[in-house]
Amino acid sequence: MSFEITILGSSSATPIYQRHPTAQVLQVQERFFLVDCGEGTLIQLNRYRIKFHRINQIFISHLHGDHYLGLMGLLSTMHLQGRTVPLQLFGPKELWEIIEIQLKYSQTTLRYPIDFHPTDPATPAVIYSDETVKVSTIILSHRIPCTGFLFEEQPRLRKIDKDKLHGLDFAAEQYQLLKEGKDLVLSDGRVMFNKDLTQDPPPPRRYAFCSDTIYDERLIDCVNSVDLLYHESTFLEELSWRAAETFHSTARQAATIAKKANVKRLIIGHFSARYKNLYPMLDEAKEVFENTTLALEGDRFSID
Amino acid sequence: MSFEITILGSSSATPIYQRHPTAQVLQVQERFFLVDCGEGTLIQLNRYRIKFHRINQIFISHLHGDHYLGLMGLLSTMHLQGRTVPLQLFGPKELWEIIEIQLKYSQTTLRYPIDFHPTDPATPAVIYSDETVKVSTIILSHRIPCTGFLFEEQPRLRKIDKDKLHGLDFAAEQYQLLKEGKDLVLSDGRVMFNKDLTQDPPPPRRYAFCSDTIYDERLIDCVNSVDLLYHESTFLEELSWRAAETFHSTARQAATIAKKANVKRLIIGHFSARYKNLYPMLDEAKEVFENTTLALEGDRFSID
Repeated sequence: MSFEITILGSSSATPIYQRHPTAQVLQVQERFFLVDCGEGTLIQLNRYRIKFHRINQIFISHLHGDHYLGLMGLLSTMHLQGRTVPLQLFGPKELWEIIEIQLKYSQTTLRYPIDFHPTDPATPAVIYSDETVKVSTIILSHRIPCTGFLFEEQPRLRKIDKDKLHGLDFAAEQYQLLKEGKDLVLSDGRVMFNKDLTQDPPPPRRYAFCSDTIYDERLIDCVNSVDLLYHESTFLEELSWRAAETFHSTARQAATIAKKANVKRLIIGHFSARYKNLYPMLDEAKEVFENTTLALEGDRFSID
Repeated sequence: MSFEITILGSSSATPIYQRHPTAQVLQVQERFFLVDCGEGTLIQLNRYRIKFHRINQIFISHLHGDHYLGLMGLLSTMHLQGRTVPLQLFGPKELWEIIEIQLKYSQTTLRYPIDFHPTDPATPAVIYSDETVKVSTIILSHRIPCTGFLFEEQPRLRKIDKDKLHGLDFAAEQYQLLKEGKDLVLSDGRVMFNKDLTQDPPPPRRYAFCSDTIYDERLIDCVNSVDLLYHESTFLEELSWRAAETFHSTARQAATIAKKANVKRLIIGHFSARYKNLYPMLDEAKEVFENTTLALEGDRFSID
């Protein structure tokens, strides 16, 4: 069962060196979630052969252009390509005003409904849940209201341990009860304890996306032990004063959050246009947290 | 003295096959005019090594996203890169509202002033003039208010014909009067007639940009005899019903306008996503007007 991030953009505000602004796709089984949508996201989706009509949920962290300016083009193209399936959109409440005014002046009535859910930039909340995944907001400290997103797999069913069945056989609905963690009471009154017949399922996989934020230790609890953390890393530590001034983070700071939160793996991105060569950024992060990777466009990160 | 168009985008609404939405740069001497600004224009400017800080005038034809969605990213990047030089922006009056709302919600105060000039979609007008070029609107018939733009070189000075001077010599200010077309009265009362000493300058070069329009013979007068006409060509003639329905044109229709207006050269663009191979489009136009070229990205068209 796939749980995979594709990086569509890794640049901060200025696209440069073939780097595009922030956008990622999370694929969980057959569902595709778009996370931020900088200018050019549609072109990047095409480039990496991700069919945009399969995206049914879009999450926008905040209203700096490098995180949402590709949205109108994507919504328009979905319309022009005949989409009728509803789209769920999560983002700052003012985003809806920006979309509506542009639809109005282009005299466009979308062929599909957008189910818009404003995010609350002050209080974390579960904003989306289906049978495979649950999404919560992470409150970030940026120059304007901004949330990250925590994607958590729903708990999976327990696994029946065939070796422990010793020839026993059950009805389909009894297997289902076992998978759900329940004990079985047989017709002769015997009780089959769940723990004797099943194994724990793998723990739910978790991905935390922290788009734009100043170094903020309140994040540590929010992303504690996640399998994969994306944390912005706009500057090198030598420009930590500039990071603080612009409410961004350095590579060292991103790695410090990763280390203190005991995450399994860190991806850094949102690189300033001043850095053509990103390896000093990677080296700086690795000094603090070894399992760090650069967010390079087209890279895919799977959690197994 | 250069007068050159660079094509940055040639796609209609859906970017596909590496084709980007509409944007062009007209360079007249050292001035760079941006004409429409579809999503990804900044990346295209970088790709074709056109320095965006040299653009001081931007012209937007209408408010369909494929003609302006790259504007906010460009304006933001100019700001982030430290621009302080004023920018002149010409476009539908509602464009300003779209820009202001996005600046407001991103809490951005641009470091440079934008001098916004709303275009009148009903009455053609001269909207810009400097010592080298004059720009007028062309009224187009599209689904929403839309103008094209006619770029005309200012009349150049007459050229002094050295062969006709026969050893005569004048003061610098007298040469200037000759270049301006005036006769000279010498101190001894002799009159030197301008026509005996000068040659006509080359005629002013003219480029007409007709972005999105239904086939409309009223255009013929507006673009009469221009050196270069860009006319949209969204469909092949076999889909002329679809062109009419969406207020677009076919290749044959674009070529018919070019022929009837007796223009010197035609560029067609704004190709529908349904056409991967554009040569049938070119062939169709050439049947009517031989001197037709496809608008392919990165292509430059000079008027000598």
